Amino acid sequence: MDSARVTFVASGSPGGKTDWLIDRISAIVGGPLATAPRLARHDGVWLDTPPASTWVVRGVRSNIRYTTGREQQRLVAAQAELGRPTSTCAALIPIDKSDAWWALAQDERRAIFEDTSRHIAIGAEYLPRIARRLYHGRDIGAAFHFLTWFEYAPEDVGAFDELVGRLRETEEWRYVTREVDIRLTRSG
Amino acid sequence: MDSARVTFVASGSPGGKTDWLIDRISAIVGGPLATAPRLARHDGVWLDTPPASTWVVRGVRSNIRYTTGREQQRLVAAQAELGRPTSTCAALIPIDKSDAWWALAQDERRAIFEDTSRHIAIGAEYLPRIARRLYHGRDIGAAFHFLTWFEYAPEDVGAFDELVGRLRETEEWRYVTREVDIRLTRSG
Repeated sequence: MDSARVTFVASGSPGGKTDWLIDRISAIVGGPLATAPRLARHDGVWLDTPPASTWVVRGVRSNIRYTTGREQQRLVAAQAELGRPTSTCAALIPIDKSDAWWALAQDERRAIFEDTSRHIAIGAEYLPRIARRLYHGRDIGAAFHFLTWFEYAPEDVGAFDELVGRLRETEEWRYVTREVDIRLTRSG
Repeated sequence: MDSARVTFVASGSPGGKTDWLIDRISAIVGGPLATAPRLARHDGVWLDTPPASTWVVRGVRSNIRYTTGREQQRLVAAQAELGRPTSTCAALIPIDKSDAWWALAQDERRAIFEDTSRHIAIGAEYLPRIARRLYHGRDIGAAFHFLTWFEYAPEDVGAFDELVGRLRETEEWRYVTREVDIRLTRSG
Protein backbone atom coordinates (compact mmCIF):
# COMPACT_ATOMS: atom_id res chain seq x y z
CA MET A 1 0.00 0.00 0.00
CA ASP A 2 1.22 3.47 -0.94
CA SER A 3 -1.45 6.02 -0.02
CA ALA A 4 -0.38 8.26 -2.93
CA ARG A 5 -1.41 5.72 -5.57
CA VAL A 6 -4.77 5.14 -7.20
CA THR A 7 -6.29 2.84 -9.81
CA PHE A 8 -9.68 3.48 -11.41
CA VAL A 9 -11.26 0.37 -12.98
CA ALA A 10 -14.23 0.63 -15.36
CA SER A 11 -16.10 -2.61 -15.89
CA GLY A 12 -19.29 -4.14 -17.17
CA SER A 13 -19.58 -7.04 -14.76
CA PRO A 14 -21.53 -6.55 -11.52
CA GLY A 15 -19.00 -8.62 -9.51
CA GLY A 16 -16.17 -7.08 -7.48
CA LYS A 17 -15.78 -3.57 -6.06
CA THR A 18 -18.21 -1.01 -7.51
CA ASP A 19 -18.29 2.43 -5.91
CA TRP A 20 -19.81 4.43 -8.71
CA LEU A 21 -22.23 4.05 -11.61
CA ILE A 22 -21.12 5.72 -14.83
CA ASP A 23 -23.79 8.11 -16.14
CA ARG A 24 -21.90 9.15 -19.27
CA ILE A 25 -18.47 9.41 -20.83
CA SER A 26 -17.78 12.37 -23.14
CA ALA A 27 -14.67 12.87 -25.27
CA ILE A 28 -13.99 16.61 -24.98
CA VAL A 29 -10.66 16.63 -26.88
CA GLY A 30 -9.11 13.64 -28.66
CA GLY A 31 -10.05 9.97 -28.40
CA PRO A 32 -12.83 8.66 -26.13
CA LEU A 33 -12.79 5.94 -23.48
CA ALA A 34 -15.13 2.97 -23.94
CA THR A 35 -18.50 3.09 -22.24
CA ALA A 36 -19.00 0.87 -19.20
CA PRO A 37 -21.64 0.81 -16.48
CA ARG A 38 -19.40 0.77 -13.38
CA LEU A 39 -16.31 2.44 -11.93
CA ALA A 40 -14.29 1.38 -8.88
CA ARG A 41 -11.72 3.68 -7.23
CA HIS A 42 -8.92 1.66 -5.63
CA ASP A 43 -7.08 4.01 -3.27
CA GLY A 44 -3.48 3.18 -2.36
CA VAL A 45 -2.60 0.70 -5.12
CA TRP A 46 -1.61 0.35 -8.74
CA LEU A 47 -3.70 -2.69 -9.67
CA ASP A 48 -2.84 -4.91 -12.59
CA THR A 49 -5.55 -4.77 -15.24
CA PRO A 50 -8.36 -7.11 -14.08
CA PRO A 51 -9.52 -9.58 -16.78
CA ALA A 52 -13.13 -8.29 -16.68
CA SER A 53 -12.24 -4.58 -16.88
CA THR A 54 -13.26 -2.33 -19.79
CA TRP A 55 -10.40 0.10 -19.06
CA VAL A 56 -8.04 0.99 -16.24
CA VAL A 57 -6.34 4.32 -15.46
CA ARG A 58 -3.67 4.86 -12.80
CA GLY A 59 -2.15 7.87 -11.06
CA VAL A 60 -0.13 9.12 -8.13
CA ARG A 61 -0.58 12.09 -5.82
CA SER A 62 2.55 14.20 -5.82
CA ASN A 63 3.96 17.40 -4.39
CA ILE A 64 2.43 20.72 -5.39
CA ARG A 65 3.72 21.93 -8.77
CA TYR A 66 2.45 25.52 -9.14
CA THR A 67 0.61 26.63 -6.00
CA THR A 68 2.35 29.17 -3.75
CA GLY A 69 2.33 28.98 0.05
CA ARG A 70 -0.18 31.82 0.28
CA GLU A 71 -2.50 30.20 -2.27
CA GLN A 72 -2.17 26.85 -0.56
CA GLN A 73 -3.17 28.30 2.84
CA ARG A 74 -6.37 29.68 1.31
CA LEU A 75 -7.16 26.39 -0.45
CA VAL A 76 -6.59 24.33 2.70
CA ALA A 77 -8.85 26.67 4.71
CA ALA A 78 -11.65 26.46 2.12
CA GLN A 79 -11.51 22.95 0.71
CA ALA A 80 -13.51 19.85 1.69
CA GLU A 81 -12.44 16.24 2.04
CA LEU A 82 -13.50 13.47 -0.32
CA GLY A 83 -16.14 11.03 0.92
CA ARG A 84 -18.80 13.43 2.23
CA PRO A 85 -22.13 11.58 2.59
CA THR A 86 -23.83 14.35 0.59
CA SER A 87 -21.38 13.97 -2.32
CA THR A 88 -23.34 11.44 -4.33
CA CYS A 89 -22.10 12.88 -7.64
CA ALA A 90 -18.56 12.58 -8.97
CA ALA A 91 -16.53 13.24 -12.08
CA LEU A 92 -13.26 11.76 -13.31
CA ILE A 93 -11.46 13.89 -15.89
CA PRO A 94 -8.35 12.35 -17.48
CA ILE A 95 -6.19 14.84 -19.40
CA ASP A 96 -3.09 14.88 -21.58
CA LYS A 97 -1.07 17.99 -22.37
CA SER A 98 1.07 18.63 -25.44
CA ASP A 99 4.83 18.25 -25.84
CA ALA A 100 4.93 22.05 -26.14
CA TRP A 101 3.52 22.34 -22.60
CA TRP A 102 6.06 19.93 -21.14
CA ALA A 103 8.95 21.69 -22.89
CA LEU A 104 8.14 25.00 -21.18
CA ALA A 105 10.23 26.15 -18.21
CA GLN A 106 8.71 26.29 -14.73
CA ASP A 107 8.00 30.04 -14.74
CA GLU A 108 6.46 29.82 -18.23
CA ARG A 109 4.05 27.06 -17.15
CA ARG A 110 3.20 28.87 -13.91
CA ALA A 111 2.45 32.07 -15.88
CA ILE A 112 0.00 30.25 -18.15
CA PHE A 113 -1.48 28.12 -15.35
CA GLU A 114 -2.28 30.91 -12.92
CA ASP A 115 -1.27 34.42 -14.02
CA THR A 116 -3.15 34.09 -17.32
CA SER A 117 -5.58 31.19 -16.88
CA ARG A 118 -6.33 31.60 -13.13
CA HIS A 119 -6.66 27.84 -12.70
CA ILE A 120 -6.19 27.98 -8.90
CA ALA A 121 -8.39 31.06 -8.44
CA ILE A 122 -11.24 29.66 -10.57
CA GLY A 123 -11.16 26.33 -8.71
CA ALA A 124 -11.15 28.14 -5.36
CA GLU A 125 -14.44 29.87 -6.20
CA TYR A 126 -16.16 26.48 -6.11
CA LEU A 127 -14.81 25.43 -2.68
CA PRO A 128 -15.97 23.77 -0.55
CA ARG A 129 -18.85 22.63 -2.82
CA ILE A 130 -16.60 20.83 -5.31
CA ALA A 131 -14.04 18.59 -3.57
CA ARG A 132 -11.08 17.77 -5.80
CA ARG A 133 -8.05 15.50 -5.90
CA LEU A 134 -5.32 15.55 -8.54
CA TYR A 135 -3.29 12.51 -9.58
CA HIS A 136 -0.26 12.59 -11.90
CA GLY A 137 0.35 9.93 -14.54
CA ARG A 138 3.00 11.12 -16.99
CA ASP A 139 6.14 10.11 -15.12
CA ILE A 140 4.76 6.67 -14.21
CA GLY A 141 3.96 5.92 -17.85
CA ALA A 142 0.21 5.81 -17.18
CA ALA A 143 -2.54 6.19 -19.79
CA PHE A 144 -3.04 9.91 -19.02
CA HIS A 145 -0.85 12.77 -17.79
CA PHE A 146 -3.42 13.81 -15.17
CA LEU A 147 -6.51 12.38 -13.53
CA THR A 148 -8.67 14.80 -11.57
CA TRP A 149 -11.38 13.37 -9.34
CA PHE A 150 -14.24 15.61 -8.20
CA GLU A 151 -17.03 14.96 -5.67
CA TYR A 152 -20.13 17.13 -5.12
CA ALA A 153 -23.82 17.08 -4.22
CA PRO A 154 -26.56 16.79 -6.88
CA GLU A 155 -27.51 20.45 -6.40
CA ASP A 156 -23.97 21.47 -7.43
CA VAL A 157 -24.01 19.78 -10.85
CA GLY A 158 -24.62 23.17 -12.47
CA ALA A 159 -21.72 24.72 -10.57
CA PHE A 160 -19.45 21.86 -11.66
CA ASP A 161 -20.47 22.28 -15.31
CA GLU A 162 -19.66 25.99 -15.00
CA LEU A 163 -16.26 25.26 -13.42
CA VAL A 164 -15.10 22.88 -16.15
CA GLY A 165 -16.57 25.17 -18.81
CA ARG A 166 -14.56 28.13 -17.55
CA LEU A 167 -11.33 26.11 -17.38
CA ARG A 168 -11.81 24.85 -20.93
CA GLU A 169 -11.82 28.43 -22.20
CA THR A 170 -8.46 29.32 -20.64
CA GLU A 171 -5.11 29.66 -22.40
CA GLU A 172 -3.90 26.65 -20.38
CA TRP A 173 -6.45 24.47 -22.15
CA ARG A 174 -4.85 25.23 -25.54
CA TYR A 175 -2.18 22.80 -24.40
CA VAL A 176 -4.71 20.01 -23.64
CA THR A 177 -4.41 17.37 -26.35
CA ARG A 178 -6.88 14.91 -24.85
CA GLU A 179 -9.67 15.27 -22.31
CA VAL A 180 -12.34 12.78 -21.34
CA ASP A 181 -15.19 13.79 -18.99
CA ILE A 182 -16.71 10.93 -16.99
CA ARG A 183 -19.78 11.65 -14.82
CA LEU A 184 -20.81 9.31 -12.03
CA THR A 185 -23.41 8.65 -9.36
CA ARG A 186 -22.59 6.85 -6.14
CA SER A 187 -23.63 3.21 -6.15
CA GLY A 188 -26.23 2.28 -3.48
CA MET B 1 11.31 1.65 -24.74
CA ASP B 2 10.57 5.00 -23.12
CA SER B 3 13.57 7.26 -23.59
CA ALA B 4 12.81 9.04 -20.30
CA ARG B 5 13.46 5.92 -18.22
CA VAL B 6 16.68 4.58 -16.79
CA THR B 7 17.84 1.63 -14.71
CA PHE B 8 21.28 1.46 -13.08
CA VAL B 9 22.38 -2.06 -12.16
CA ALA B 10 25.34 -2.69 -9.83
CA SER B 11 26.71 -6.20 -10.00
CA GLY B 12 29.64 -8.37 -9.12
CA SER B 13 29.56 -10.75 -12.02
CA PRO B 14 31.58 -9.92 -15.15
CA GLY B 15 28.80 -11.19 -17.49
CA GLY B 16 26.23 -8.90 -19.11
CA LYS B 17 26.35 -5.17 -19.80
CA THR B 18 29.10 -3.29 -17.95
CA ASP B 19 29.68 0.33 -18.84
CA TRP B 20 31.44 1.53 -15.72
CA LEU B 21 33.75 0.26 -12.99
CA ILE B 22 32.85 1.40 -9.50
CA ASP B 23 35.83 3.10 -7.80
CA ARG B 24 34.08 3.77 -4.48
CA ILE B 25 30.69 4.18 -2.84
CA SER B 26 30.40 6.72 0.02
CA ALA B 27 27.36 7.19 2.27
CA ILE B 28 27.22 10.99 2.72
CA VAL B 29 23.91 11.09 4.65
CA GLY B 30 21.94 8.05 5.84
CA GLY B 31 22.36 4.43 4.84
CA PRO B 32 24.96 3.20 2.30
CA LEU B 33 24.57 1.09 -0.82
CA ALA B 34 26.45 -2.21 -0.98
CA THR B 35 29.83 -2.23 -2.68
CA ALA B 36 30.01 -3.86 -6.10
CA PRO B 37 32.66 -3.76 -8.85
CA ARG B 38 30.49 -2.89 -11.85
CA LEU B 39 27.66 -0.55 -12.89
CA ALA B 40 25.55 -0.70 -16.05
CA ARG B 41 23.36 2.19 -17.17
CA HIS B 42 20.32 0.94 -19.08
CA ASP B 43 18.86 3.92 -20.90
CA GLY B 44 15.18 3.79 -21.89
CA VAL B 45 13.93 0.96 -19.65
CA TRP B 46 12.86 0.06 -16.15
CA LEU B 47 14.50 -3.35 -15.86
CA ASP B 48 13.30 -5.97 -13.41
CA THR B 49 15.99 -6.70 -10.83
CA PRO B 50 18.44 -9.16 -12.48
CA PRO B 51 19.24 -12.24 -10.34
CA ALA B 52 22.97 -11.46 -10.24
CA SER B 53 22.62 -7.77 -9.29
CA THR B 54 23.92 -6.28 -6.05
CA TRP B 55 21.42 -3.40 -6.24
CA VAL B 56 19.25 -1.65 -8.78
CA VAL B 57 18.04 1.98 -8.88
CA ARG B 58 15.50 3.37 -11.34
CA GLY B 59 14.42 6.84 -12.42
CA VAL B 60 12.63 8.90 -15.03
CA ARG B 61 13.51 12.17 -16.74
CA SER B 62 10.70 14.65 -16.28
CA ASN B 63 9.77 18.24 -17.01
CA ILE B 64 11.74 21.06 -15.42
CA ARG B 65 10.59 21.75 -11.87
CA TYR B 66 12.35 24.99 -10.82
CA THR B 67 14.36 26.42 -13.71
CA THR B 68 13.02 29.55 -15.40
CA GLY B 69 13.05 30.11 -19.15
CA ARG B 70 15.95 32.56 -18.86
CA GLU B 71 18.00 30.17 -16.70
CA GLN B 72 17.19 27.30 -19.04
CA GLN B 73 18.42 29.23 -22.10
CA ARG B 74 21.77 29.83 -20.40
CA LEU B 75 22.08 26.19 -19.33
CA VAL B 76 21.27 24.88 -22.81
CA ALA B 77 23.83 27.22 -24.35
CA ALA B 78 26.55 26.13 -21.92
CA GLN B 79 25.90 22.45 -21.20
CA ALA B 80 27.46 19.38 -22.82
CA GLU B 81 25.90 16.08 -23.83
CA LEU B 82 26.54 12.79 -22.08
CA GLY B 83 28.80 10.30 -23.82
CA ARG B 84 31.78 12.52 -24.68
CA PRO B 85 34.83 10.35 -25.47
CA THR B 86 36.87 12.40 -23.00
CA SER B 87 34.38 11.80 -20.17
CA THR B 88 35.96 8.70 -18.72
CA CYS B 89 34.90 9.62 -15.17
CA ALA B 90 31.34 9.55 -13.86
CA ALA B 91 29.39 9.86 -10.64
CA LEU B 92 25.94 8.64 -9.67
CA ILE B 93 24.43 10.47 -6.69
CA PRO B 94 21.11 9.10 -5.38
CA ILE B 95 19.30 11.43 -2.97
CA ASP B 96 16.20 11.48 -0.77
CA LYS B 97 14.62 14.63 0.64
CA SER B 98 12.55 14.95 3.81
CA ASP B 99 8.77 15.02 4.19
CA ALA B 100 9.20 18.67 5.24
CA TRP B 101 10.67 19.44 1.79
CA TRP B 102 7.85 17.74 -0.08
CA ALA B 103 5.20 19.51 2.03
CA LEU B 104 6.49 22.95 0.98
CA ALA B 105 4.60 24.93 -1.67
CA GLN B 106 6.18 25.53 -5.08
CA ASP B 107 7.39 29.08 -4.34
CA GLU B 108 8.86 27.95 -1.02
CA ARG B 109 10.87 25.14 -2.64
CA ARG B 110 12.01 27.42 -5.48
CA ALA B 111 13.14 30.04 -2.92
CA ILE B 112 15.31 27.50 -1.10
CA PHE B 113 16.51 25.78 -4.29
CA GLU B 114 17.73 28.84 -6.14
CA ASP B 115 17.18 32.17 -4.37
CA THR B 116 18.97 30.95 -1.21
CA SER B 117 20.98 27.88 -2.25
CA ARG B 118 21.82 28.89 -5.86
CA HIS B 119 21.64 25.28 -7.03
CA ILE B 120 21.23 26.23 -10.71
CA ALA B 121 23.86 29.00 -10.59
CA ILE B 122 26.46 26.83 -8.83
CA GLY B 123 25.93 23.96 -11.30
CA ALA B 124 26.21 26.38 -14.23
CA GLU B 125 29.70 27.44 -13.13
CA TYR B 126 30.94 23.93 -13.93
CA LEU B 127 29.49 23.77 -17.45
CA PRO B 128 30.41 22.40 -19.89
CA ARG B 129 33.08 20.49 -17.94
CA ILE B 130 30.59 18.53 -15.81
CA ALA B 131 27.74 17.05 -17.91
CA ARG B 132 24.68 16.24 -15.84
CA ARG B 133 21.38 14.42 -16.13
CA LEU B 134 18.65 14.35 -13.47
CA TYR B 135 16.22 11.47 -13.00
CA HIS B 136 13.19 11.51 -10.67
CA GLY B 137 12.18 8.51 -8.56
CA ARG B 138 9.69 9.55 -5.89
CA ASP B 139 6.47 9.38 -7.89
CA ILE B 140 7.36 6.05 -9.48
CA GLY B 141 8.02 4.48 -6.06
CA ALA B 142 11.73 4.00 -6.78
CA ALA B 143 14.47 3.47 -4.20
CA PHE B 144 15.51 7.16 -4.25
CA HIS B 145 13.73 10.47 -4.86
CA PHE B 146 16.45 11.64 -7.27
CA LEU B 147 19.34 10.14 -9.21
CA THR B 148 21.84 12.56 -10.70
CA TRP B 149 24.32 11.24 -13.23
CA PHE B 150 27.49 13.24 -13.95
CA GLU B 151 30.20 12.72 -16.60
CA TYR B 152 33.58 14.49 -16.77
CA ALA B 153 37.21 14.12 -17.73
CA PRO B 154 39.87 12.94 -15.23
CA GLU B 155 41.32 16.48 -15.03
CA ASP B 156 37.95 17.73 -13.74
CA VAL B 157 37.73 15.42 -10.71
CA GLY B 158 38.78 18.31 -8.46
CA ALA B 159 36.14 20.59 -9.97
CA PHE B 160 33.49 17.93 -9.44
CA ASP B 161 34.51 17.48 -5.79
CA GLU B 162 34.26 21.25 -5.35
CA LEU B 163 30.79 21.33 -6.98
CA VAL B 164 29.28 18.64 -4.75
CA GLY B 165 31.01 20.13 -1.70
CA ARG B 166 29.46 23.55 -2.33
CA LEU B 167 25.97 22.07 -2.85
CA ARG B 168 26.26 20.09 0.38
CA GLU B 169 26.73 23.33 2.32
CA THR B 170 23.53 24.95 1.01
CA GLU B 171 20.25 25.40 2.87
CA GLU B 172 18.66 23.04 0.33
CA TRP B 173 20.87 20.22 1.59
CA ARG B 174 19.37 20.51 5.10
CA TYR B 175 16.38 18.74 3.54
CA VAL B 176 18.51 15.86 2.22
CA THR B 177 17.81 12.79 4.37
CA ARG B 178 19.93 10.35 2.37
CA GLU B 179 22.78 10.81 -0.09
CA VAL B 180 25.08 8.21 -1.58
CA ASP B 181 28.08 9.23 -3.73
CA ILE B 182 29.20 6.64 -6.28
CA ARG B 183 32.34 7.36 -8.34
CA LEU B 184 33.08 5.47 -11.54
CA THR B 185 35.59 5.00 -14.33
CA ARG B 186 34.55 4.00 -17.82
CA SER B 187 35.07 0.32 -18.55
CA GLY B 188 37.47 -0.47 -21.40
